[in-house]
Amino acid sequence: MGGLNTRGAAPKQDRSRATRQRLLESAVTCLAEHGWTGSTVTVVAEHAGVSRGAAQHHFPTREDLFTAAVEYVAEERSKALRSPVGGDGEPAGTRSAVEMLVALYTGPLFRAALQLWVAASNEPQLEPRVTALEARIGRETHRMAVEVLGADESVPGVRETVQGLLDMARGLGLANLLTDDSARRERVVAQWELIVRDALAR
Amino acid sequence: MGGLNTRGAAPKQDRSRATRQRLLESAVTCLAEHGWTGSTVTVVAEHAGVSRGAAQHHFPTREDLFTAAVEYVAEERSKALRSPVGGDGEPAGTRSAVEMLVALYTGPLFRAALQLWVAASNEPQLEPRVTALEARIGRETHRMAVEVLGADESVPGVRETVQGLLDMARGLGLANLLTDDSARRERVVAQWELIVRDALAR
Repeated sequence: MGGLNTRGAAPKQDRSRATRQRLLESAVTCLAEHGWTGSTVTVVAEHAGVSRGAAQHHFPTREDLFTAAVEYVAEERSKALRSPVGGDGEPAGTRSAVEMLVALYTGPLFRAALQLWVAASNEPQLEPRVTALEARIGRETHRMAVEVLGADESVPGVRETVQGLLDMARGLGLANLLTDDSARRERVVAQWELIVRDALAR
Repeated sequence: MGGLNTRGAAPKQDRSRATRQRLLESAVTCLAEHGWTGSTVTVVAEHAGVSRGAAQHHFPTREDLFTAAVEYVAEERSKALRSPVGGDGEPAGTRSAVEMLVALYTGPLFRAALQLWVAASNEPQLEPRVTALEARIGRETHRMAVEVLGADESVPGVRETVQGLLDMARGLGLANLLTDDSARRERVVAQWELIVRDALAR
Protein backbone atom coordinates (compact mmCIF):
# COMPACT_ATOMS: atom_id res chain seq x y z
CA MET A 1 0.00 0.00 0.00
CA GLY A 2 1.12 3.46 -0.94
CA GLY A 3 0.53 4.78 2.55
CA LEU A 4 2.76 2.17 4.14
CA ASN A 5 5.52 2.71 1.58
CA THR A 6 5.51 6.43 2.27
CA ARG A 7 5.68 5.87 6.02
CA GLY A 8 8.53 3.40 5.44
CA ALA A 9 10.49 5.79 3.18
CA ALA A 10 10.25 8.86 5.36
CA PRO A 11 12.43 7.66 8.28
CA LYS A 12 15.00 6.37 5.78
CA GLN A 13 15.12 9.78 4.10
CA ASP A 14 15.39 11.42 7.51
CA ARG A 15 18.28 9.16 8.45
CA SER A 16 19.99 9.91 5.16
CA ARG A 17 19.51 13.64 5.67
CA ALA A 18 20.83 13.40 9.23
CA THR A 19 23.91 11.49 8.05
CA ARG A 20 24.55 14.06 5.34
CA GLN A 21 24.23 16.89 7.85
CA ARG A 22 26.61 15.18 10.32
CA LEU A 23 29.16 14.74 7.53
CA LEU A 24 28.91 18.41 6.53
CA GLU A 25 29.31 19.66 10.08
CA SER A 26 32.21 17.28 10.74
CA ALA A 27 33.91 18.42 7.52
CA VAL A 28 33.87 22.05 8.69
CA THR A 29 35.13 21.09 12.15
CA CYS A 30 37.98 18.97 10.71
CA LEU A 31 38.95 21.66 8.19
CA ALA A 32 39.11 24.33 10.91
CA GLU A 33 41.11 22.06 13.23
CA HIS A 34 43.41 20.08 10.93
CA GLY A 35 43.55 22.13 7.72
CA TRP A 36 43.07 20.78 4.21
CA THR A 37 46.00 18.36 4.29
CA GLY A 38 44.79 16.75 7.51
CA SER A 39 41.15 16.57 6.43
CA THR A 40 40.63 13.46 4.35
CA VAL A 41 37.23 11.89 3.72
CA THR A 42 38.25 9.07 6.09
CA VAL A 43 39.01 11.53 8.92
CA VAL A 44 35.66 13.30 8.42
CA ALA A 45 33.69 10.01 8.22
CA GLU A 46 35.29 8.86 11.48
CA HIS A 47 34.52 12.18 13.17
CA ALA A 48 30.89 11.90 12.00
CA GLY A 49 30.63 8.24 13.09
CA VAL A 50 29.79 7.19 9.53
CA SER A 51 31.44 4.52 7.35
CA ARG A 52 33.74 5.69 4.58
CA GLY A 53 31.40 4.04 2.06
CA ALA A 54 28.39 5.95 3.36
CA ALA A 55 30.39 9.19 3.18
CA GLN A 56 31.30 8.45 -0.43
CA HIS A 57 27.69 7.63 -1.23
CA HIS A 58 26.75 11.17 -0.17
CA PHE A 59 29.86 12.88 -1.54
CA PRO A 60 31.69 11.05 -4.36
CA THR A 61 34.84 13.21 -4.11
CA ARG A 62 36.72 15.05 -1.39
CA GLU A 63 36.09 18.33 -3.25
CA ASP A 64 32.33 17.62 -3.24
CA LEU A 65 32.33 17.07 0.50
CA PHE A 66 34.29 20.17 1.50
CA THR A 67 32.73 22.71 -0.86
CA ALA A 68 29.26 21.42 0.16
CA ALA A 69 30.28 21.66 3.82
CA VAL A 70 31.43 25.28 3.71
CA GLU A 71 28.35 26.21 1.68
CA TYR A 72 26.00 24.41 4.08
CA VAL A 73 27.45 26.08 7.17
CA ALA A 74 27.42 29.49 5.46
CA GLU A 75 23.72 29.01 4.64
CA GLU A 76 22.91 27.96 8.20
CA ARG A 77 24.79 31.00 9.51
CA SER A 78 22.94 33.22 7.09
CA LYS A 79 19.55 31.81 8.19
CA ALA A 80 20.46 32.31 11.85
CA LEU A 81 21.49 35.91 11.21
CA ARG A 82 18.41 36.67 9.18
CA SER A 83 15.93 35.60 11.84
CA PRO A 84 16.52 38.25 14.55
CA VAL A 85 17.06 41.07 12.04
CA GLY A 86 14.48 40.07 9.46
CA GLY A 87 11.89 39.51 12.18
CA ASP A 88 10.80 43.11 12.48
CA GLY A 89 12.50 44.31 9.29
CA GLU A 90 14.44 46.91 11.30
CA PRO A 91 18.20 47.33 10.81
CA ALA A 92 20.32 46.75 13.90
CA GLY A 93 22.12 49.76 15.36
CA THR A 94 25.50 50.44 13.71
CA ARG A 95 27.29 49.21 16.79
CA SER A 96 25.69 45.79 16.97
CA ALA A 97 25.66 45.56 13.15
CA VAL A 98 29.44 46.01 12.93
CA GLU A 99 29.97 43.57 15.80
CA MET A 100 27.69 41.02 14.13
CA LEU A 101 29.54 41.31 10.80
CA VAL A 102 32.96 41.00 12.43
CA ALA A 103 31.74 37.95 14.37
CA LEU A 104 31.07 36.22 11.02
CA TYR A 105 34.82 36.19 10.40
CA THR A 106 36.09 35.03 13.75
CA GLY A 107 34.28 31.71 14.21
CA PRO A 108 35.02 28.15 13.04
CA LEU A 109 33.30 28.70 9.67
CA PHE A 110 35.80 31.41 8.75
CA ARG A 111 38.71 29.21 9.88
CA ALA A 112 37.39 26.35 7.74
CA ALA A 113 36.74 28.60 4.73
CA LEU A 114 40.21 30.11 5.05
CA GLN A 115 41.81 26.65 4.97
CA LEU A 116 39.75 25.81 1.87
CA TRP A 117 40.57 29.13 0.07
CA VAL A 118 44.29 28.73 0.71
CA ALA A 119 44.30 25.05 -0.34
CA ALA A 120 42.41 26.03 -3.52
CA SER A 121 45.14 28.52 -4.42
CA ASN A 122 47.51 25.56 -4.90
CA GLU A 123 45.13 22.82 -6.06
CA PRO A 124 43.80 23.15 -9.60
CA GLN A 125 40.98 20.62 -9.10
CA LEU A 126 39.69 22.60 -6.09
CA GLU A 127 40.23 26.13 -7.38
CA PRO A 128 37.23 26.72 -9.73
CA ARG A 129 34.73 25.29 -7.24
CA VAL A 130 36.05 27.31 -4.33
CA THR A 131 36.18 30.47 -6.45
CA ALA A 132 32.49 30.03 -7.34
CA LEU A 133 31.64 29.25 -3.71
CA GLU A 134 33.53 32.30 -2.47
CA ALA A 135 31.60 34.50 -4.93
CA ARG A 136 28.24 33.12 -3.73
CA ILE A 137 29.10 33.50 -0.03
CA GLY A 138 30.52 36.98 -0.71
CA ARG A 139 27.31 38.17 -2.38
CA GLU A 140 25.16 36.77 0.40
CA THR A 141 27.35 38.31 3.12
CA HIS A 142 27.22 41.68 1.38
CA ARG A 143 23.42 41.47 1.15
CA MET A 144 23.23 40.71 4.89
CA ALA A 145 25.62 43.57 5.70
CA VAL A 146 23.51 46.10 3.77
CA GLU A 147 20.45 44.85 5.64
CA VAL A 148 21.85 44.92 9.19
CA LEU A 149 23.50 48.29 8.60
CA GLY A 150 20.32 49.73 7.05
CA ALA A 151 22.63 51.10 4.31
CA ASP A 152 21.21 52.87 1.25
CA GLU A 153 23.33 51.70 -1.67
CA SER A 154 21.75 54.19 -4.07
CA VAL A 155 23.94 56.82 -2.36
CA PRO A 156 27.34 57.07 -4.13
CA GLY A 157 30.14 55.48 -2.08
CA VAL A 158 27.87 53.53 0.28
CA ARG A 159 28.39 50.23 -1.56
CA GLU A 160 32.18 50.64 -1.25
CA THR A 161 31.89 51.68 2.42
CA VAL A 162 30.06 48.41 3.16
CA GLN A 163 32.54 46.38 1.08
CA GLY A 164 35.52 47.94 2.84
CA LEU A 165 33.95 47.17 6.21
CA LEU A 166 33.61 43.51 5.21
CA ASP A 167 37.23 43.50 3.99
CA MET A 168 38.21 44.81 7.42
CA ALA A 169 36.17 42.08 9.12
CA ARG A 170 37.96 39.50 6.94
CA GLY A 171 41.33 40.97 7.92
CA LEU A 172 40.34 40.86 11.60
CA GLY A 173 39.46 37.19 11.12
CA LEU A 174 42.88 36.48 9.68
CA ALA A 175 44.57 38.33 12.56
CA ASN A 176 42.75 35.94 14.92
CA LEU A 177 44.09 32.78 13.25
CA LEU A 178 47.18 32.13 15.39
CA THR A 179 46.50 34.14 18.52
CA ASP A 180 43.48 35.32 20.46
CA ASP A 181 43.17 38.82 19.04
CA SER A 182 39.89 39.65 20.81
CA ALA A 183 41.14 42.48 23.07
CA ARG A 184 42.73 44.42 20.22
CA ARG A 185 39.80 43.60 17.94
CA GLU A 186 37.32 45.03 20.42
CA ARG A 187 39.13 48.39 20.47
CA VAL A 188 39.42 48.51 16.67
CA VAL A 189 35.74 47.62 16.23
CA ALA A 190 34.64 50.28 18.76
CA GLN A 191 36.55 52.96 16.84
CA TRP A 192 35.40 51.81 13.42
CA GLU A 193 31.76 51.68 14.51
CA LEU A 194 32.01 55.47 14.99
CA ILE A 195 33.77 55.95 11.65
CA VAL A 196 31.29 53.79 9.71
CA ARG A 197 28.30 55.48 11.37
CA ASP A 198 29.64 58.89 10.26
CA ALA A 199 30.46 57.63 6.77
CA LEU A 200 26.99 56.15 6.28
CA ALA A 201 25.28 59.28 7.66
CA ARG A 202 26.89 61.60 5.10
CA MET B 1 99.68 36.55 5.40
CA GLY B 2 96.64 38.10 7.09
CA GLY B 3 95.95 40.37 4.13
CA LEU B 4 95.79 37.47 1.70
CA ASN B 5 93.58 35.45 4.03
CA THR B 6 91.18 38.35 4.35
CA ARG B 7 91.07 38.85 0.58
CA GLY B 8 90.55 35.09 0.19
CA ALA B 9 87.77 35.00 2.79
CA ALA B 10 85.79 37.97 1.52
CA PRO B 11 84.64 36.50 -1.82
CA LYS B 12 83.79 33.25 -0.03
CA GLN B 13 81.63 35.18 2.45
CA ASP B 14 80.06 37.07 -0.44
CA ARG B 15 79.25 33.81 -2.20
CA SER B 16 77.78 32.39 0.97
CA ARG B 17 75.67 35.50 1.47
CA ALA B 18 74.49 35.39 -2.15
CA THR B 19 73.52 31.71 -1.81
CA ARG B 20 71.63 32.46 1.39
CA GLN B 21 69.79 35.32 -0.27
CA ARG B 22 68.87 33.20 -3.31
CA LEU B 23 67.50 30.52 -0.99
CA LEU B 24 65.40 33.04 0.92
CA GLU B 25 63.95 34.58 -2.23
CA SER B 26 63.25 31.16 -3.74
CA ALA B 27 61.55 30.06 -0.53
CA VAL B 28 59.10 32.98 -0.71
CA THR B 29 58.43 32.35 -4.41
CA CYS B 30 57.81 28.62 -3.83
CA LEU B 31 55.57 29.28 -0.83
CA ALA B 32 53.46 31.79 -2.80
CA GLU B 33 53.18 29.44 -5.79
CA HIS B 34 52.98 25.96 -4.29
CA GLY B 35 51.83 26.52 -0.71
CA TRP B 36 53.42 24.96 2.38
CA THR B 37 52.77 21.34 1.42
CA GLY B 38 54.42 21.78 -1.98
CA SER B 39 57.38 23.77 -0.64
CA THR B 40 59.98 21.33 0.64
CA VAL B 41 63.64 22.27 1.16
CA THR B 42 64.47 20.18 -1.94
CA VAL B 43 62.04 22.17 -4.11
CA VAL B 44 63.46 25.47 -2.86
CA ALA B 45 67.09 24.35 -3.30
CA GLU B 46 66.34 23.32 -6.89
CA HIS B 47 64.60 26.63 -7.60
CA ALA B 48 67.63 28.49 -6.18
CA GLY B 49 70.10 26.32 -8.13
CA VAL B 50 71.77 25.19 -4.88
CA SER B 51 72.44 21.67 -3.62
CA ARG B 52 70.20 20.30 -0.90
CA GLY B 53 73.30 19.99 1.34
CA ALA B 54 74.19 23.65 0.86
CA ALA B 55 70.60 24.63 1.66
CA GLN B 56 70.73 22.60 4.87
CA HIS B 57 74.06 24.16 5.80
CA HIS B 58 72.37 27.56 5.77
CA PHE B 59 69.03 26.42 7.21
CA PRO B 60 69.13 23.21 9.26
CA THR B 61 65.33 22.77 9.27
CA ARG B 62 62.46 23.55 6.93
CA GLU B 63 60.98 25.84 9.61
CA ASP B 64 64.29 27.78 9.79
CA LEU B 65 64.26 28.34 6.04
CA PHE B 66 60.69 29.54 5.70
CA THR B 67 60.44 31.77 8.75
CA ALA B 68 63.79 33.36 7.77
CA ALA B 69 62.52 33.81 4.21
CA VAL B 70 59.32 35.62 5.13
CA GLU B 71 61.23 37.78 7.62
CA TYR B 72 63.94 38.63 5.08
CA VAL B 73 61.47 39.67 2.39
CA ALA B 74 59.44 41.69 4.89
CA GLU B 75 62.61 43.54 5.92
CA GLU B 76 63.57 44.23 2.32
CA ARG B 77 60.05 45.52 1.64
CA SER B 78 60.21 47.69 4.72
CA LYS B 79 63.58 49.16 3.63
CA ALA B 80 62.23 49.87 0.14
CA LEU B 81 59.17 51.62 1.55
CA ARG B 82 61.18 53.63 4.02
CA SER B 83 63.51 55.17 1.46
CA PRO B 84 61.10 57.37 -0.55
CA VAL B 85 59.07 58.38 2.50
CA GLY B 86 61.90 58.74 4.98
CA GLY B 87 63.92 60.70 2.40
CA ASP B 88 62.34 64.05 3.12
CA GLY B 89 60.64 63.03 6.35
CA GLU B 90 57.28 64.11 4.91
CA PRO B 91 54.24 61.84 5.17
CA ALA B 92 52.71 60.81 1.84
CA GLY B 93 49.23 62.17 1.04
CA THR B 94 46.42 60.02 2.47
CA ARG B 95 45.55 58.75 -1.01
CA SER B 96 48.99 57.43 -1.87
CA ALA B 97 49.53 56.30 1.74
CA VAL B 98 46.42 54.09 1.72
CA GLU B 99 47.33 52.73 -1.73
CA MET B 100 50.86 51.98 -0.55
CA LEU B 101 49.61 50.14 2.55
CA VAL B 102 47.07 48.10 0.59
CA ALA B 103 49.79 47.20 -1.95
CA LEU B 104 51.75 45.55 0.90
CA TYR B 105 49.01 42.94 1.14
CA THR B 106 48.49 42.14 -2.51
CA GLY B 107 51.97 41.06 -3.61
CA PRO B 108 53.85 37.74 -3.47
CA LEU B 109 55.10 38.39 0.07
CA PHE B 110 51.56 38.46 1.42
CA ARG B 111 50.68 35.30 -0.52
CA ALA B 112 53.73 33.56 0.94
CA ALA B 113 53.05 34.83 4.47
CA LEU B 114 49.41 33.72 4.21
CA GLN B 115 50.48 30.19 3.27
CA LEU B 116 52.87 30.14 6.24
CA TRP B 117 50.29 31.53 8.73
CA VAL B 118 47.67 28.98 7.65
CA ALA B 119 50.15 26.08 7.73
CA ALA B 120 51.23 27.20 11.22
CA SER B 121 47.63 26.97 12.45
CA ASN B 122 47.82 23.19 11.95
CA GLU B 123 51.51 22.47 12.60
CA PRO B 124 52.63 22.68 16.22
CA GLN B 125 56.37 22.86 15.35
CA LEU B 126 55.76 25.86 13.11
CA GLU B 127 53.19 27.71 15.19
CA PRO B 128 55.28 29.49 17.88
CA ARG B 129 57.86 30.72 15.36
CA VAL B 130 55.27 32.05 12.96
CA THR B 131 53.33 33.69 15.80
CA ALA B 132 56.48 35.54 16.88
CA LEU B 133 57.28 36.46 13.27
CA GLU B 134 53.74 37.74 12.66
CA ALA B 135 54.00 39.94 15.77
CA ARG B 136 57.33 41.44 14.59
CA ILE B 137 56.07 42.09 11.05
CA GLY B 138 52.79 43.48 12.43
CA ARG B 139 54.61 45.99 14.67
CA GLU B 140 56.88 47.11 11.85
CA THR B 141 53.96 47.48 9.40
CA HIS B 142 52.03 49.53 11.96
CA ARG B 143 55.05 51.78 12.48
CA MET B 144 55.31 52.32 8.71
CA ALA B 145 51.59 53.01 8.42
CA VAL B 146 51.72 55.71 11.12
CA GLU B 147 54.66 57.28 9.30
CA VAL B 148 53.21 57.32 5.76
CA LEU B 149 49.82 58.52 7.03
CA GLY B 150 51.43 61.20 9.20
CA ALA B 151 49.07 60.00 11.95
CA ASP B 152 49.28 61.39 15.49
CA GLU B 153 48.74 58.44 17.81
CA SER B 154 48.53 60.65 20.89
CA VAL B 155 45.00 61.54 19.71
CA PRO B 156 42.46 59.06 21.15
CA GLY B 157 41.19 56.62 18.53
CA VAL B 158 43.93 57.29 15.96
CA ARG B 159 45.85 54.13 16.83
CA GLU B 160 42.70 52.05 16.28
CA THR B 161 41.90 53.91 13.04
CA VAL B 162 45.32 52.95 11.67
CA GLN B 163 44.97 49.36 12.91
CA GLY B 164 41.54 48.97 11.31
CA LEU B 165 42.91 50.29 8.03
CA LEU B 166 45.66 47.65 8.10
CA ASP B 167 43.05 44.98 8.93
CA MET B 168 41.13 46.13 5.86
CA ALA B 169 44.28 45.94 3.74
CA ARG B 170 44.82 42.37 5.01
CA GLY B 171 41.24 41.49 4.11
CA LEU B 172 41.70 42.98 0.63
CA GLY B 173 44.80 40.82 0.22
CA LEU B 174 42.82 37.71 1.13
CA ALA B 175 40.06 38.67 -1.35
CA ASN B 176 42.76 38.74 -4.04
CA LEU B 177 43.97 35.19 -3.36
CA LEU B 178 41.86 33.24 -5.88
CA THR B 179 40.76 35.92 -8.33
CA ASP B 180 42.09 39.23 -9.60
CA ASP B 181 40.19 41.58 -7.32
CA SER B 182 41.94 44.76 -8.49
CA ALA B 183 38.93 46.54 -10.09
CA ARG B 184 36.74 46.16 -6.99
CA ARG B 185 39.69 46.90 -4.71
CA GLU B 186 40.40 50.17 -6.50
CA ARG B 187 36.85 51.42 -5.88
CA VAL B 188 36.93 50.34 -2.21
CA VAL B 189 40.31 51.99 -1.67
CA ALA B 190 39.16 55.26 -3.31
CA GLN B 191 36.16 55.45 -0.96
CA TRP B 192 38.13 54.48 2.15
CA GLU B 193 40.83 57.05 1.43
CA LEU B 194 38.13 59.69 1.92
CA ILE B 195 36.83 58.01 5.08
CA VAL B 196 40.30 57.64 6.61
CA ARG B 197 41.25 61.23 5.74
CA ASP B 198 38.14 62.49 7.53
CA ALA B 199 38.68 60.18 10.50
CA LEU B 200 42.31 61.28 10.93
CA ALA B 201 41.41 64.97 10.57
CA ARG B 202 38.94 64.93 13.48
